[in-house]
Amino acid sequence: MTKRYAVVLAAGQGTRMKSKLYKVLHPVMGKPMVQHVVNQLTKLKLENVITIVGFGAEKVKEQLGDVSNFVIQEEQLGTGHAVMQAEEFLKDKEGTTIVVCGDTPLLTSQTLEALLSHHDKEGAKVTVLTAKASDPTGYGRVIRNKYNDVERIVEHKDANESEITIDEINTGTYCFDNQSLFKALKQVSNNNSQGEYYLPDVIQILKKSNEKISAFQTKSFDETLGVNDRVALAQAEKLMKKRINEDHMRNGVTLIDPDNSYIGPDVIIKQDAIIYPGCFIDGNTIIESDAVIGPNTEIRSCEVGENTTIRQSVAIDSKIGKRVQIGPFAHIRPQADIGDEVKIGNFVEIKKATLDKNSKVSHLSYIGDAEVGKGVNIGCGTITVNYDGKNKHLTKIEDDAFIGCNSNLIAPVTIGKGSYVAAGSTINKNVPADALSIARVRQTNKEDYGKKLKKMQKD
Amino acid sequence: MTKRYAVVLAAGQGTRMKSKLYKVLHPVMGKPMVQHVVNQLTKLKLENVITIVGFGAEKVKEQLGDVSNFVIQEEQLGTGHAVMQAEEFLKDKEGTTIVVCGDTPLLTSQTLEALLSHHDKEGAKVTVLTAKASDPTGYGRVIRNKYNDVERIVEHKDANESEITIDEINTGTYCFDNQSLFKALKQVSNNNSQGEYYLPDVIQILKKSNEKISAFQTKSFDETLGVNDRVALAQAEKLMKKRINEDHMRNGVTLIDPDNSYIGPDVIIKQDAIIYPGCFIDGNTIIESDAVIGPNTEIRSCEVGENTTIRQSVAIDSKIGKRVQIGPFAHIRPQADIGDEVKIGNFVEIKKATLDKNSKVSHLSYIGDAEVGKGVNIGCGTITVNYDGKNKHLTKIEDDAFIGCNSNLIAPVTIGKGSYVAAGSTINKNVPADALSIARVRQTNKEDYGKKLKKMQKD
Amino acid sequence: MTKRYAVVLAAGQGTRMKSKLYKVLHPVMGKPMVQHVVNQLTKLKLENVITIVGFGAEKVKEQLGDVSNFVIQEEQLGTGHAVMQAEEFLKDKEGTTIVVCGDTPLLTSQTLEALLSHHDKEGAKVTVLTAKASDPTGYGRVIRNKYNDVERIVEHKDANESEITIDEINTGTYCFDNQSLFKALKQVSNNNSQGEYYLPDVIQILKKSNEKISAFQTKSFDETLGVNDRVALAQAEKLMKKRINEDHMRNGVTLIDPDNSYIGPDVIIKQDAIIYPGCFIDGNTIIESDAVIGPNTEIRSCEVGENTTIRQSVAIDSKIGKRVQIGPFAHIRPQADIGDEVKIGNFVEIKKATLDKNSKVSHLSYIGDAEVGKGVNIGCGTITVNYDGKNKHLTKIEDDAFIGCNSNLIAPVTIGKGSYVAAGSTINKNVPADALSIARVRQTNKEDYGKKLKKMQKD
Repeated sequence: MTKRYAVVLAAGQGTRMKSKLYKVLHPVMGKPMVQHVVNQLTKLKLENVITIVGFGAEKVKEQLGDVSNFVIQEEQLGTGHAVMQAEEFLKDKEGTTIVVCGDTPLLTSQTLEALLSHHDKEGAKVTVLTAKASDPTGYGRVIRNKYNDVERIVEHKDANESEITIDEINTGTYCFDNQSLFKALKQVSNNNSQGEYYLPDVIQILKKSNEKISAFQTKSFDETLGVNDRVALAQAEKLMKKRINEDHMRNGVTLIDPDNSYIGPDVIIKQDAIIYPGCFIDGNTIIESDAVIGPNTEIRSCEVGENTTIRQSVAIDSKIGKRVQIGPFAHIRPQADIGDEVKIGNFVEIKKATLDKNSKVSHLSYIGDAEVGKGVNIGCGTITVNYDGKNKHLTKIEDDAFIGCNSNLIAPVTIGKGSYVAAGSTINKNVPADALSIARVRQTNKEDYGKKLKKMQKD
Repeated sequence: MTKRYAVVLAAGQGTRMKSKLYKVLHPVMGKPMVQHVVNQLTKLKLENVITIVGFGAEKVKEQLGDVSNFVIQEEQLGTGHAVMQAEEFLKDKEGTTIVVCGDTPLLTSQTLEALLSHHDKEGAKVTVLTAKASDPTGYGRVIRNKYNDVERIVEHKDANESEITIDEINTGTYCFDNQSLFKALKQVSNNNSQGEYYLPDVIQILKKSNEKISAFQTKSFDETLGVNDRVALAQAEKLMKKRINEDHMRNGVTLIDPDNSYIGPDVIIKQDAIIYPGCFIDGNTIIESDAVIGPNTEIRSCEVGENTTIRQSVAIDSKIGKRVQIGPFAHIRPQADIGDEVKIGNFVEIKKATLDKNSKVSHLSYIGDAEVGKGVNIGCGTITVNYDGKNKHLTKIEDDAFIGCNSNLIAPVTIGKGSYVAAGSTINKNVPADALSIARVRQTNKEDYGKKLKKMQKD
Repeated sequence: MTKRYAVVLAAGQGTRMKSKLYKVLHPVMGKPMVQHVVNQLTKLKLENVITIVGFGAEKVKEQLGDVSNFVIQEEQLGTGHAVMQAEEFLKDKEGTTIVVCGDTPLLTSQTLEALLSHHDKEGAKVTVLTAKASDPTGYGRVIRNKYNDVERIVEHKDANESEITIDEINTGTYCFDNQSLFKALKQVSNNNSQGEYYLPDVIQILKKSNEKISAFQTKSFDETLGVNDRVALAQAEKLMKKRINEDHMRNGVTLIDPDNSYIGPDVIIKQDAIIYPGCFIDGNTIIESDAVIGPNTEIRSCEVGENTTIRQSVAIDSKIGKRVQIGPFAHIRPQADIGDEVKIGNFVEIKKATLDKNSKVSHLSYIGDAEVGKGVNIGCGTITVNYDGKNKHLTKIEDDAFIGCNSNLIAPVTIGKGSYVAAGSTINKNVPADALSIARVRQTNKEDYGKKLKKMQKD
């Protein structure tokens, strides 16, 4: 098989993004654009990926890591000049070089593979990836000859009256015969109004030598979207979201409103899960079958078990069992490990805590740095006092304990198996198994004092 | 008037749904698809609705109940075979039989009535419900003759070059002369690649006998959407949502963003109510005039009074009075009965509790199993300790009582009229009217001990 | 330069709005429609704006205030009659009068300026603002003559077969030579089926006198949307939202989903801020660079500092510093002043309180009417008991104090610099600097009593 190489153009600053962040590092569905491009490229069988970096070079290299080689384009002298920087890696190679922009995050490996196959089959020296645009304004038009090959690419501003009606546009992605590419690049001049070396000029140069220039038209114009400002970035986000969400739906997940469901590219959702609107699910989250998520729920990098319900809540970096009920208005912070059939109710925060099967924290509680056994009932307003101003300490609550409302459990402390803590108690010593622990004052009723109080306030 | 019958095709499994739930039971705006279909049919004057069930027969029967008769199609041998199962109910009947798929939840009784009227007026033996499709790919095309009657239906794959450009498509809904239908069904063969008995074959059979085949074209292609996978399910949800929301807006309700407002089909909203985005309102909820709901609020089966505001909150199965303020971040659980001018503030949970006029629970409280009188002020952090680990008990707070912050009211307990509970008290005995009740320890300040503590921690 | 005047038609009731609120007062992105219109007009150099009021006259006058003169149209006798009411202000004036409907909130000053310029350049007596409609049904069609001037306007119902295919429509906005306008208005009759005096009749009248009638076609049909019911109101809201959001994106703000971001017209957002979906930001809010807002966050009239994060929260009328973390599920109520690097965690309410640099209120607390110093740690469940049933009092917490969990601070009270309050204490006297303050009972463990309790409950 022909050897394949890729050059990714990722050196531009992206002035129209108006950002401190370099253009290709702007994320789409949580992942930098250039990472999307490189991820798709790595699915093709390539010998080498060379990323041309310039603005933000270090950050781009850090982002992509080992999957790419890098060359720095010191000055931004045009796309032709950019590709030329890859010469040190590619000059002696035989094979096909695919050139992709780092700001086209929607391109799929399927389309790129189809482009490469077409290129091979046609035996062309260049194959341009083209698409039909409903509004081609601003794009280079593809002029084909009677053999259906590419005669030339005409920039919008240079197009004549008939050319301007052509709706097949140049997407800026190309396959080249590698050696022809670098030979032709040497002939590209910067004799134009911008003083830049343009990659598409290679086409004319090869055409003059009577080389075959082919075009492969993808059916998906959307896929070829290049992002130059944040309006286009939002559009890319929307299209990527649609793609991800339709995949989930085809796999048997119900999304009540895919337009209003934000699911990251690495999330796994099993059949018959239901996602209500207003949910943000990302990271390496796995949601098992029959789970019901949302509305208005944020889940990052969690495992969520079968038949578990999470409503109007936030859960991060945690493991949540089966048939668990969470929310509304619960906050599961990192390192929570929540057992099967646990209930976490409203206004409850769980942090770095284990809750074993069938325990309940139904309301207005903070359980942090804790190990909670099975069948524990934690009353409303319970607080694990885990912080003394300097260190965090552990609270252990053993199986079947019952913690009365508004209790403080001052860690380190252990509440024994089957014990009771009376409501309103502040506990700073261990409670033995089966004991009742109490720390409160007897109630005094002062007759008519309420009336006096009211009178005093009025004076 | 001609007698009318309906056959609903609801036997399919819906493999492409990839679901344990049978296809026609998948909900659209909270109601199973087949229920939508049957609800629309029952608005027509029908003698009988016969639902053909197969996969999930018991569940479908349970869902629809008495409004339909049911026949089981033991094997899935095609739509013609399915209708044939209704023979026992319909064979001797004179009149018109309408055949509808159980997966077309958007069809309205208006359209079905128009189809039936057209059928009667035309004196046809069959009338096909058709629609213009902007992209007819995949649909059967309707070939009309010079009298504008149907010549035949051509499946997409069998259409010739001119037929394929026709954009009038067969929606799969039909009216038949009942006796002609069952006579013709006996002649339908399964001599085709799928080995199935197809209902549209009836058309050719009747055509051969020179019967009149008519078509009624609905203007709303959207209405005829058939749901075969969850992408289509989401589309149906979106169209139904749009229909419901436009009705509310035309009735004088302001929806700030109808695309992001999820209102169930049985919800009633009165004039000049305002619904902010991100709201989920369903069940038998009634929202009175000038109420302001949202953003990001979930209301299920509640009555919400005039001029009441509910923001960023969840309310379920409760009654909420006039000029009430709820939220943000409040949770009204079932069986709450909230009087006029009550205020329920942030991080407050109300469950199975009555709050009378003008009472306030402004922050961080749990009021469950309680009767709260008029003009009561419940301080921040108050908890009704309603659960002793085994049973739930009642808390009564009489008119004009003032409950200090962070109090526990251990039920069963009564806090008398006009009484005060001091902040931080745990109350387990009744408080007489006008009394001050207190259960707390005097404060001790240990000079410089804070400094020592800090030093100790640092060691 | 020609002198310019404007007449705003704002007298109608808007029956189809089905509302107690007068039509032009219905808000779009939080601002009444007629206010949008007048705001755009005031950007033109006008001598005078005259608003014709009728239904809800007082409310409209109150809304618009000094920027307009007002005339009352006592009876609603048509648009011509409405403009006629402005005669007292305009009859002797030379110059150009622009007539705009108060229900066209999307019209921009740029378009109106272009209309006025075109009018001047063409030397016309009338210039009609027109637009191309993809579906012109219902609109008046613009019939142009061979000089490209307006021959006449034909109402939809009066259009002949060829006229009905014209897609250039009358938007209802006009420029007139002022004197010609009032002269012609006198000739307009109400001899029509509605018995009304129609403003467009002026065109025919002037045409008969061989005056030049021009048309200026805007490219933005959307901008000319007139709102007659709440479906159109929602559409206007959507278009205005899109316009505002695209401006922010072009200025360097990332909106993850502009369709699901609700940002008021007066909000300022700086470069590289990120707005997650489900946010409602309005009033005079300023959001500084690199702030991260949302998802599902409501911010009204706040200043939000650089690098601050606010998630799943509500903040109103407050000042929030740099590198602050708020949420999820926090509520910042009016008059909060939150210093740099402060942390406000989940289920925390802040009201009328100052928190100085680096202080933390991480969970389940209410801080109201308080001054909190630097580096203070406020434990979980802390409550400032600011209300005694009659008055609100101040809590002062000095630098580096540490407030234990579930404490009540009964105001007025001062917690001294560097002091400690023990968890579970109710504090009603000042705490000296560096002291430890404690108000709680020693814990008693009753062995095996838990077991007994359980047995008792079971009996």
